[in-house]
Amino acid sequence: MSTAPPMLINGVAGSQVPALDRGLQYGDGLFETVRCEQGGLRWFGRHLARLGAGCERLGIAMPGGALLRSEAVAVAAGMPRSLVKIIVTRGEARARGYRPRGDEIPTRIVSAHPWPAAPEAEFRVGLSAVTLGVNPQLAGIKHLNRLEQVLAQRAATDTGLQEVLMRSGQGEVVCGSMSNLFLWQGSELLTPGLDACGVAGIMRGLLLELAPRLGLAVRVGPVSVAQLTAARAIIVTNVRLGLQPVHWYEGRRLEVDERGAQLQELIDATP
Amino acid sequence: MSTAPPMLINGVAGSQVPALDRGLQYGDGLFETVRCEQGGLRWFGRHLARLGAGCERLGIAMPGGALLRSEAVAVAAGMPRSLVKIIVTRGEARARGYRPRGDEIPTRIVSAHPWPAAPEAEFRVGLSAVTLGVNPQLAGIKHLNRLEQVLAQRAATDTGLQEVLMRSGQGEVVCGSMSNLFLWQGSELLTPGLDACGVAGIMRGLLLELAPRLGLAVRVGPVSVAQLTAARAIIVTNVRLGLQPVHWYEGRRLEVDERGAQLQELIDATP
Repeated sequence: MSTAPPMLINGVAGSQVPALDRGLQYGDGLFETVRCEQGGLRWFGRHLARLGAGCERLGIAMPGGALLRSEAVAVAAGMPRSLVKIIVTRGEARARGYRPRGDEIPTRIVSAHPWPAAPEAEFRVGLSAVTLGVNPQLAGIKHLNRLEQVLAQRAATDTGLQEVLMRSGQGEVVCGSMSNLFLWQGSELLTPGLDACGVAGIMRGLLLELAPRLGLAVRVGPVSVAQLTAARAIIVTNVRLGLQPVHWYEGRRLEVDERGAQLQELIDATP
Repeated sequence: MSTAPPMLINGVAGSQVPALDRGLQYGDGLFETVRCEQGGLRWFGRHLARLGAGCERLGIAMPGGALLRSEAVAVAAGMPRSLVKIIVTRGEARARGYRPRGDEIPTRIVSAHPWPAAPEAEFRVGLSAVTLGVNPQLAGIKHLNRLEQVLAQRAATDTGLQEVLMRSGQGEVVCGSMSNLFLWQGSELLTPGLDACGVAGIMRGLLLELAPRLGLAVRVGPVSVAQLTAARAIIVTNVRLGLQPVHWYEGRRLEVDERGAQLQELIDATP
C-alpha cells in the first residue's frame, strides 16, 4: 500500500505477523470487510454472524465480538469513511503439517483502509474464464483461500472491467470475484444459490431480507450463462458497492431498473 | 512450534512477515517441502521446476534458483536431516483487493524443520469425507490455498490414521491430504491423474519416471472408491515418507508388494 494502514494485531499496533501463522502457511482463516462511516460500523452484527459461522466450520475459536468491534472502531478512528478488514486465522502453527494441534491461539488482524474511489459511472462486467472449485464444506464462508478470485481479477487487468462474474466448474454462474449477483427477471430478482461455492455476502443477505418489503420477490436458484446473456438488467452487490447496477455486460448495454435504488435506500436505512 | 525453526525471510534471518503480504491475505503463493540430508538438498531441481511452473501459472516472478538453493542450504546447516520449507508469495499488497498491481516483489520464506519421527510401523489410511474442489487452473501446483487439506487432517484427529485419501467433488479418488496415491494392480501401478485437482508430487514424478527401469508399468487414470476398496496393495508417496506402503486401509489389512522397496532404492540412488 502507498501508506501503511492503521493496524492492530491481537490488539497491539503493528504490521507484522509470524511467518509460521497458519493463515499464511495454508490460508487457514477467515476475513470480513466492514463498511465504516463516521466511526460507525455498518451491519456489524451480520459480519460477526458470518465470521462465527466460518469459525464454526473451520473449528477456529471465535474471538469475542465486543473485542473485534472495539478494535475495528479503533483502527478506523479519524477516517470519515473506511473499509475495515478483519482477518482471523487459526493462529501460529504449533506443529509442522496440515493437522491443527487444537491448542492454537487465533490471530486477529484488524486494519482500516481509505474508502476507495467510486467506480466509473459506467460499470462494466464480463464473464471470467477462471472457474470456482465446488466444495460445499467451504461454500458460503469468507475464508482466506482466494486464489481463484486473484486469478480472475488478474486476468481482468487492462480489460476496463470493474468486475468479472464466475462460474463453478460445473458451469453454473455463481457470483462475481468480489460480489454477489442478481438478475432482474420481470418483477422478480434471481440470485445463484451458494451451496457449492461462493461467499454469502452481507449485502446479498440484506437484499434477500428487505426486498419483500418493496413487494419484490427474490428467487434463489441456478443461473446459467444463457440467462446472463439474456438478462435485461443485472446488479452486483458487496458492502463497498452496495447494489451496483451493471451498465455493460460483455459489451452489451443493460437497463438499470430503478427499483434497485429504492432497495438501496431501504438497505441504507437498516442498522 | 516448540522451538523457532531457522528461517530466512528474503535472505535475512527473521520470523515475521508483513500482515499485508498477499500470501496471508489470499493464499497468493506457493510452497515446496524439500528433503535435506547431511547438508544436501534432494531432488532440488525438480522442486525448482514445480515451483517455476506454479509461479508461471499464478503470474509470480520466480526467484532465482541459485538464491533459493543457497537459502535452503543455509537454514538447514547443522541439522543432519531436515525438511526445508520454501514459501514464495506474490509479495506485500500494493493496493487493496484481489487484483495484483503487477509490481509486487515476491516474498521468500525459507525455514528448516527437524526430520519428523518415523510413522508408526503399521501405516493406517482412511477415506476422508472432505472433498477437493475441481479447478484445472490450480491443479498440479503446490499453492498456498490448503484449507481442504487442513479440514481433512483435522477430521482425522484422534482416528489413529496417519493419512487420509481424498476424492474430488466429482467422486474420483485423487490423492492423500499430503501425499500421492498408487494402487498395485497385478504387475502394474495405477495412480490418479491430476488435471482436475491435487498436487503433482516430486516422489510421484520420480516413481513415474523410474518404474519402467524395473519393468513396472504405471498407468495414470481415474481411480474409484471401489478400486480402492478392492486394492490388494497401496502406496502413498511424498518426499518425507518416500514410497510408504499402506498396511491398513479403512480397517482392512493390505499386502505389501516388495517391488515398492526396490523402487525406493532406485529413487534413493537418483540425484
